[in-house]
Amino acid sequence: MPEITILTERELRECVTLDLEAVDIVEEAFAALARGGVVMPPVLSMAIEAANGEVDVKTAYVPGLDGFAVKVSPGFFDNPGLGLPSLSGLMVVLDARTGVVKAVLLDNGYLTDIRTAAAGAVAARHLAPREVRTAGVIGAGVQAELQARALRLVRPFEELVVWARDREKAKRFADRMAGALGCRTSVADDAAECVRRAQAVVTTTPARTTVLEADWLHPGLHVTAMGSDAPEKNELAPEVLKAAGRVVVDRLQQSLERGELRSAKAAGRMPDGAIDEIGEICAGLKPGRRSEDEVTICDLTGTGVQDTAIANRALQAARARGFGTPIEA
Amino acid sequence: MPEITILTERELRECVTLDLEAVDIVEEAFAALARGGVVMPPVLSMAIEAANGEVDVKTAYVPGLDGFAVKVSPGFFDNPGLGLPSLSGLMVVLDARTGVVKAVLLDNGYLTDIRTAAAGAVAARHLAPREVRTAGVIGAGVQAELQARALRLVRPFEELVVWARDREKAKRFADRMAGALGCRTSVADDAAECVRRAQAVVTTTPARTTVLEADWLHPGLHVTAMGSDAPEKNELAPEVLKAAGRVVVDRLQQSLERGELRSAKAAGRMPDGAIDEIGEICAGLKPGRRSEDEVTICDLTGTGVQDTAIANRALQAARARGFGTPIEA
Repeated sequence: MPEITILTERELRECVTLDLEAVDIVEEAFAALARGGVVMPPVLSMAIEAANGEVDVKTAYVPGLDGFAVKVSPGFFDNPGLGLPSLSGLMVVLDARTGVVKAVLLDNGYLTDIRTAAAGAVAARHLAPREVRTAGVIGAGVQAELQARALRLVRPFEELVVWARDREKAKRFADRMAGALGCRTSVADDAAECVRRAQAVVTTTPARTTVLEADWLHPGLHVTAMGSDAPEKNELAPEVLKAAGRVVVDRLQQSLERGELRSAKAAGRMPDGAIDEIGEICAGLKPGRRSEDEVTICDLTGTGVQDTAIANRALQAARARGFGTPIEA
Repeated sequence: MPEITILTERELRECVTLDLEAVDIVEEAFAALARGGVVMPPVLSMAIEAANGEVDVKTAYVPGLDGFAVKVSPGFFDNPGLGLPSLSGLMVVLDARTGVVKAVLLDNGYLTDIRTAAAGAVAARHLAPREVRTAGVIGAGVQAELQARALRLVRPFEELVVWARDREKAKRFADRMAGALGCRTSVADDAAECVRRAQAVVTTTPARTTVLEADWLHPGLHVTAMGSDAPEKNELAPEVLKAAGRVVVDRLQQSLERGELRSAKAAGRMPDGAIDEIGEICAGLKPGRRSEDEVTICDLTGTGVQDTAIANRALQAARARGFGTPIEA
């Protein structure tokens, strides 16, 4: 059997960063999903209640890519009390022709962070109004930062408005982002203000009670909801989806199972119009934003094609740099 | 984050062998499944038709074990033409309290082979007649050999009768096993003869057309069918399950989805009596063989609890030996 390459988080951070290349890679993966030929089974989920933990496994085969990833994503929410991050995990890259393990990417969730943020940029590229002067972010965690940076790659906003339940954390986040992005940042008094002032908003919370209400929507607003990826999570009030002119998701089945459509459906408030997948837009099969006044919503749950795309890219970049520990198979 | 231990197939082969300890570990895992507290989600399956391949992911959390395994099992059936084995894969061991990756077991399917054979021994221990003078094996591959060796750990038979579609392969297998087991071996003229002469039979084929018929059953016979683990596979004629006095499976849901119960159900020939899980017998909640004359069938599809149990054992044994390559997480 061929050698297996083991890559560490440190190496992977040098190989893949949040830039337009990562955005394009994720865009292409979404397009492949819409064009057909992709195999992407439902997420395998295991809840370990005894440890307040869960593990998701995602995978997808994308024709034309050398390998495919099987990603193991644990989330153990008592870890911070033990001095460990809640999220960790790895990606296994298998050869798409033989199934043989090519590499193990010990990324501790880093590649997931990047591909998730990149998906936000893809959504904004197609759905946000052309001009976004003020961007809003709800939440102040790792994805809040990455989503703000990703959005700025495709919509060079002048100001970032932040809201988070923990006002001190929001303040620190806003200060940090002012430096990181070199733009004005401010903390909104409430989520309503954050949404009102922005032309594009990203919700990045693990909220179980909604953080964005329908009567805050205003003409031309785009909202990307990337927080909900499990059946108990829900960021958008069901009325938001009903009130929006356009609802787009990364994967219909997943949004219905573990995203914003699950809660909308449970509330009997499913959108009236068609629900498109972002890949259909990326592939040119459906239009992006249709008018400057339309309110657009994109719900991202996180898909296996993103993992496969970013894992292939990471492995290619690592090989080019001679990174990795080879292990006899 | 703590260091991650990478173990190779060569190391793992030194750590875990097919012996009574492996059988007891798998027995205990089955018992845990019946006692409750285990979390074992449905198998994640992905078919990659373009490469005549498939990938299964199995996992299970077993209370009381330090870690749990997520196993990635690829089967790519054109590999032999490329000089590669069809089956490969690895197991990832995660900490049961924190989800943090503890180890990656690059076993290329070796641990699966062992835990699968060990399950055959568990089934025979509880369901085969007390005295098995002649054992039958249908098939002549890796599992044919391992199942014969596993069966002998719990039923020290005097003779092994073999049948396989490829008579030459069957002959070579029988010769090899005579040396390996130190007992008489012979090749049956047909599968019917193999079954007729044996008190315990293991079917170990990837057959898509049945290899064992109901009118070959005889009083006191035990059959373990371990070949079918995917919806297109089927070793036992549906009438076999209907005619047997006792039908036991490793996991009801899996047998209905990808085992012998799937084909029985499709044929409208489900067993009349109760279908027990082997773990219920291991846990003492259900009896094993109830009479010397009963015909018993056990369908094994392969379960995540077996993977978690064997992976924990392998890691423990590897640590005791100081094996493995540590990688900074």
